[in-house]
Amino acid sequence: MTFPVVGMVGGGQLARMTHEAGIPLGIRFKLLSDTPQDSAAQVVSDVVVGDHRDLDTLRRFARGCDVITFDHEHVPTGHLRALEADGIPVRPGPDALEHAQDKGVMRARLDGMGVPCPRHRLVRDPADVAAFAAEGTGGTGSAGGTAGSGGADSAPGGAFPFPVVLKTVRGGYDGKGVWIVRSVEEAALPFRAGVPVLAEEKVDFTRELAANVVRSPHGQAVAYPVVESVQVDGVCDTVIAPAPGLAPARSAEAQQLALRIAEELGVIGHLAVELFETADGRVLVNELAMRPHNSGHWTQDGAVTSQFANHVRAVLDLPLGDPRPRARWTVMANVLGGDYPDMYTAYLHCMARDPQLKIHMYGKDVKPGRKVGHVNTYGDDLADVRERAAHAAGYLRGTIQE
Amino acid sequence: MTFPVVGMVGGGQLARMTHEAGIPLGIRFKLLSDTPQDSAAQVVSDVVVGDHRDLDTLRRFARGCDVITFDHEHVPTGHLRALEADGIPVRPGPDALEHAQDKGVMRARLDGMGVPCPRHRLVRDPADVAAFAAEGTGGTGSAGGTAGSGGADSAPGGAFPFPVVLKTVRGGYDGKGVWIVRSVEEAALPFRAGVPVLAEEKVDFTRELAANVVRSPHGQAVAYPVVESVQVDGVCDTVIAPAPGLAPARSAEAQQLALRIAEELGVIGHLAVELFETADGRVLVNELAMRPHNSGHWTQDGAVTSQFANHVRAVLDLPLGDPRPRARWTVMANVLGGDYPDMYTAYLHCMARDPQLKIHMYGKDVKPGRKVGHVNTYGDDLADVRERAAHAAGYLRGTIQE
Repeated sequence: MTFPVVGMVGGGQLARMTHEAGIPLGIRFKLLSDTPQDSAAQVVSDVVVGDHRDLDTLRRFARGCDVITFDHEHVPTGHLRALEADGIPVRPGPDALEHAQDKGVMRARLDGMGVPCPRHRLVRDPADVAAFAAEGTGGTGSAGGTAGSGGADSAPGGAFPFPVVLKTVRGGYDGKGVWIVRSVEEAALPFRAGVPVLAEEKVDFTRELAANVVRSPHGQAVAYPVVESVQVDGVCDTVIAPAPGLAPARSAEAQQLALRIAEELGVIGHLAVELFETADGRVLVNELAMRPHNSGHWTQDGAVTSQFANHVRAVLDLPLGDPRPRARWTVMANVLGGDYPDMYTAYLHCMARDPQLKIHMYGKDVKPGRKVGHVNTYGDDLADVRERAAHAAGYLRGTIQE
Repeated sequence: MTFPVVGMVGGGQLARMTHEAGIPLGIRFKLLSDTPQDSAAQVVSDVVVGDHRDLDTLRRFARGCDVITFDHEHVPTGHLRALEADGIPVRPGPDALEHAQDKGVMRARLDGMGVPCPRHRLVRDPADVAAFAAEGTGGTGSAGGTAGSGGADSAPGGAFPFPVVLKTVRGGYDGKGVWIVRSVEEAALPFRAGVPVLAEEKVDFTRELAANVVRSPHGQAVAYPVVESVQVDGVCDTVIAPAPGLAPARSAEAQQLALRIAEELGVIGHLAVELFETADGRVLVNELAMRPHNSGHWTQDGAVTSQFANHVRAVLDLPLGDPRPRARWTVMANVLGGDYPDMYTAYLHCMARDPQLKIHMYGKDVKPGRKVGHVNTYGDDLADVRERAAHAAGYLRGTIQE
């Protein structure tokens, strides 16, 4: 048997869907999962239950794996270096992954590359935040932002006081670890955990975009169409592929930006670059994720090769698959938990109403607000495609009754 | 957790791909596999290793399953009735499945329905075969064939002597259990095993077609486009969807025939109706299979809903998914084992040559002539789509070197 074993750290839905994508390639999949009930652990045969923060557990897990990759960014960088020193390929590697683990490191690096970012600074206390806010002169900051040294930032535009966005530099996701503070009093909260905090201007964006690319150790890279990501309450609600009305030149520019970041940071596998599009037509980098990403779930049914399949191909250094779309429009809508725990019964209506609907559930217990699945729809008529996705997601959640 | 558990009997590639298709639906999958190394056992978390011919094993396996379905037709009918008596839904049920298990039962039933079949008869010895051959008067037999009672069949056309096709009524697949005999001496071989044998005229067909349908307990049914199946040495080599040059009326007729068989036999799940198309434009039923089928593998990448996803939906009595094609042409080519055991290395060339290629490997050890995977290609230009599929299958097998 010459087929390799991919070791996946983390048992969430990204691991589950990566396993699904690896089955047709005949890849062996080995999972390190927190519990035997985790989303991916339900569907993978070779599961090690253990703590990804424990180096001995990681080392035991890595034995027999040909490569290690990730469902999340929470493995300590030092552990990843230790695995590499043991001779296990870690993809993406710790040098790249640190930029997705630590927002301070990420901002400093993107500044160094001259990549447009929101104005930002590492802050130590509410007084620091107030100073940062006072220095703002409005708008979305100049291209490249200002580096952590602070000082005389003088971007054009009106006053830039509060609100300010505060983020813990590590560990946040889906709006967790992010605060929008409107006063120096409100700015106290993020510091209570005693972890480093990054202050960012609250960008007056018109919409959020995402540029998804995949890169292999050989340096081959593919770029998916740039998508629009519609957020509700800080959580991704809907993704539209491609982003409606995005000029081809702007789209190509965002793809090239993501490819450049992937190359300069040495990313292996899938890289999601979350972007703000501003009213004056600029694009600023919001976040980086180095793994399959919610903004790429549409590719499962809407692209020739899904982000999951290409992530597997990349970490194994196989030639990458065609990232082009298979439909004019594809829409992904996240299914959040509602008050009604039985989503399976809702399948009857959803499937009967829309025989083209693609449901992707994660095997998670329903809790209000928890991402438990998503749906994909595709077609030629964007309004119809959006309506079908929104209806199914709403019906599964229980917010739509008919 | 309200999601059902689907019990799959048999650990082959059909089970593997059905599991893959069930993951997005959040379905729990439980497998009864001959060994822990079987194709599906490699990728399923909940595996019972045991013998599907043993009723106690089946009963132990069925505990905790909401429905039982199959990767193959080899479970004894009596055992299936026992499971049903225990209150476990068995889909397809034994009354339907018997027609896919026993070619004698199948022929008698199709005759009764007036479905066009090759001329046929159950035979006891070589003398019986010779008599059957002598009665033949050529052509492909009249619509409905002749029932097992034999006698004065007088189909139009020329002489119908040898060759005659002999088949064991149970247990054959992929050309195994099938003989084409050219003399009464050759006719002795199939009887050596002591199992019942069915004689059939050797139909002078121009090509083989397959009509694939899926039916649910509610009676909802969907029909996939009729495909052409190209056989080499009695084994399916290539499937072209839709069958090139098949008149729409003929295609609709074949679909309706398959839907009628599914309904009258009470099939639940996927039904493949293998057909002969004759020079004079008639269509005769060759074989029935009540499970996902090689002639439907193209649907994984070429249809809105794959045969595997629809099989899962059917056995769970969920509304069925859209069976329509996503591309003008989709071609499936089987990957057979060759002399070189390392197919993984061949991925490099295949993936680099064709970034749109869809590979589906089964995790099986390579043995010469063994089906170890398949590839799908799709596009607008049939010649190009066929060439790409044939190249990849040949390169993986080792019969094409560049």
